[in-house]
Amino acid sequence: MSNRIITVYREAHFNAAHRLHQPLWTDEENKIIFGKCNNPHYHGHNYKLIVGVTGEIDPLSGYVIDMKILSKLIKDEVEEHFDHKNLNEELSEFNSLNPTVENIAVVIWNRLSSKLSPSLKLSIQLYETDRNYVQYTGN
Amino acid sequence: MSNRIITVYREAHFNAAHRLHQPLWTDEENKIIFGKCNNPHYHGHNYKLIVGVTGEIDPLSGYVIDMKILSKLIKDEVEEHFDHKNLNEELSEFNSLNPTVENIAVVIWNRLSSKLSPSLKLSIQLYETDRNYVQYTGN
Amino acid sequence: MSNRIITVYREAHFNAAHRLHQPLWTDEENKIIFGKCNNPHYHGHNYKLIVGVTGEIDPLSGYVIDMKILSKLIKDEVEEHFDHKNLNEELSEFNSLNPTVENIAVVIWNRLSSKLSPSLKLSIQLYETDRNYVQYTGN
Amino acid sequence: MSNRIITVYREAHFNAAHRLHQPLWTDEENKIIFGKCNNPHYHGHNYKLIVGVTGEIDPLSGYVIDMKILSKLIKDEVEEHFDHKNLNEELSEFNSLNPTVENIAVVIWNRLSSKLSPSLKLSIQLYETDRNYVQYTGN
Amino acid sequence: MSNRIITVYREAHFNAAHRLHQPLWTDEENKIIFGKCNNPHYHGHNYKLIVGVTGEIDPLSGYVIDMKILSKLIKDEVEEHFDHKNLNEELSEFNSLNPTVENIAVVIWNRLSSKLSPSLKLSIQLYETDRNYVQYTGN
Amino acid sequence: MSNRIITVYREAHFNAAHRLHQPLWTDEENKIIFGKCNNPHYHGHNYKLIVGVTGEIDPLSGYVIDMKILSKLIKDEVEEHFDHKNLNEELSEFNSLNPTVENIAVVIWNRLSSKLSPSLKLSIQLYETDRNYVQYTGN
Repeated sequence: MSNRIITVYREAHFNAAHRLHQPLWTDEENKIIFGKCNNPHYHGHNYKLIVGVTGEIDPLSGYVIDMKILSKLIKDEVEEHFDHKNLNEELSEFNSLNPTVENIAVVIWNRLSSKLSPSLKLSIQLYETDRNYVQYTGN
Repeated sequence: MSNRIITVYREAHFNAAHRLHQPLWTDEENKIIFGKCNNPHYHGHNYKLIVGVTGEIDPLSGYVIDMKILSKLIKDEVEEHFDHKNLNEELSEFNSLNPTVENIAVVIWNRLSSKLSPSLKLSIQLYETDRNYVQYTGN
Repeated sequence: MSNRIITVYREAHFNAAHRLHQPLWTDEENKIIFGKCNNPHYHGHNYKLIVGVTGEIDPLSGYVIDMKILSKLIKDEVEEHFDHKNLNEELSEFNSLNPTVENIAVVIWNRLSSKLSPSLKLSIQLYETDRNYVQYTGN
Repeated sequence: MSNRIITVYREAHFNAAHRLHQPLWTDEENKIIFGKCNNPHYHGHNYKLIVGVTGEIDPLSGYVIDMKILSKLIKDEVEEHFDHKNLNEELSEFNSLNPTVENIAVVIWNRLSSKLSPSLKLSIQLYETDRNYVQYTGN
Repeated sequence: MSNRIITVYREAHFNAAHRLHQPLWTDEENKIIFGKCNNPHYHGHNYKLIVGVTGEIDPLSGYVIDMKILSKLIKDEVEEHFDHKNLNEELSEFNSLNPTVENIAVVIWNRLSSKLSPSLKLSIQLYETDRNYVQYTGN
Repeated sequence: MSNRIITVYREAHFNAAHRLHQPLWTDEENKIIFGKCNNPHYHGHNYKLIVGVTGEIDPLSGYVIDMKILSKLIKDEVEEHFDHKNLNEELSEFNSLNPTVENIAVVIWNRLSSKLSPSLKLSIQLYETDRNYVQYTGN
């Protein structure tokens, strides 16, 4: 039988400040669209990230990917980069990109994807609050 | 690059009473199939709903859909309609439809879908208890 | 050294319908105080119960109380009695007692307490929703 | 029998930015004690608040306190005041008080306590993350 | 209209001991790859299982599958088989198969799938910890 | 005003194998009391630990205890000691002490308490599963 295809998931967390703001719009427009999320003094969130990696189960190790390697990748590429940061002020990715949860997810996916073997498929879920989250698969 | 496709999720809740009953069956058949869920005096649940909306990230706002608009849509179409209601007695959708979690999910999907832009794809998860839930994507 | 005093907790669940209503008040007064919880057609909840039992650790078994015995007690006295029931219509305890989460907790505490050894101290937490709950210790 | 004493709990949430900083210390000392929490650009959290109110169950309503009134109090005194704010920059309470989760809890307790009937006892739990939280009872 | 396709989910739990070990490798290699999970004295987990069954909603019952039947199937095929067991020592499936969460998921899927109607599609999620889990759909 | 007294909580986790067994009893007695928890091949759990530390808020730092110090203490005294271990086989504390969740909690409390300042009061919650846990305050 050929190797089984499965998805493994790993949860991680980071805490960050941000504000939603589109510099191409007037202050009034920003206020109307983004409401209190537009507060110039920033607010913040505990972001919860779930990283999914799909691939074949290795017949010897029984792993799709060694979870210690995946955890270290998430630590290096996401936690070290985003944790306890101000996304607007300190992360160059958001110089001209509004740090909505959608856009943060795309940035994270791109960072992780560039370091993963092409034989593995990557998906991520990013929770901004317990009740608001996104899922992104790179399409 | 073309716009990214992503799914945003929003959680909501409502509390309702119901009983499972198929009028085409005898009382004995209803009792056998539905057990204590057939209790004529009703029982109830805290329903948890997760609404997923898939679409392109708007390059200016960074949103797929403004969460305030999605929240209001869920409030108007689901919470106001279902919360603190007796599904069998008070909601016309269940006049001839058994209010199983499967059927409630289809009714909710139809209500929300009719108000969403056709460019957006809708999926829902509906939890009847922490351990029993369904996912419906409109197929 | 004397035996250690510790509290063991066990979680259980039941689903029930109810309405809040005080027959000594007018319909108008009930409506004002209880709002949509006063709906005459009932609504319902998934109740989560956490039972705490405080006592000495038995030096041989290492138990305060055998969890199988505590689970059976909760099943017999709470789950069988409340699950899939209409609290107002089917439980005599609420003939003249409004089934608020406060009063349901007192009723549950009394049912469990009467079956526990007097050397054990009982406390309960009862969740009506994830965000509303009570704690009662029999005082 | 006298009225039963019980505690009712209500959960709420707010999202805020902050930094930990003690102006009486040097930058070096702040860095050593507070680490990345001292980041001058701020970071943020989803704070979860659980408010507990202990009192007698009213024999007519079956309530300790009307949950609609308690929810409105939490909304007015906590959510409106803290949500989507920068605690250091925008809240006068933290002009000379370091916004640790301990100190935020004391500020919240004081705000709520001043509006509650003296016959009710107030306790709060405040979660800065899922794994770090405090409990304060006003002592 | 044709019958709606939906997925119903049911959560279950079992507790088991295991160690990760590949007999084709040296002890040194096992130690490097599996780290403390290779402990010859075993360690253990609370496994959480979510079983998903996709199919048409029956127009009379409103069910995809009777949850009582699905629960009994999970109890017979998974809980009775895995709960409070040592996976390496007591389950023949792992005589020559490393009990990683990936391989346990495949074994569970195969056991459940063989008892389900071919008209139903099966997927499972298996959590080894709250932060590590897999999803398997039989591919 | 004197310094405020508050309790700070920190959550941690470890995974371990164990069996319940009282050598002073016959095999038959062990089987009757401990049921499948007596399995000689061991089973296991994901233990969740919540450590509470009560003390005065330091007026300068705003801390009861530096969470980095508390986290390191939990890591050194609990995680390193218990994680991925067989409690019966590898931990001397359980040579003649049955590793029930009650007794594990007492052992953890004693290890942590011996390293904490006497001005701080320690309490712990230890979850063996999501539905079974204990609370111990050192009495």
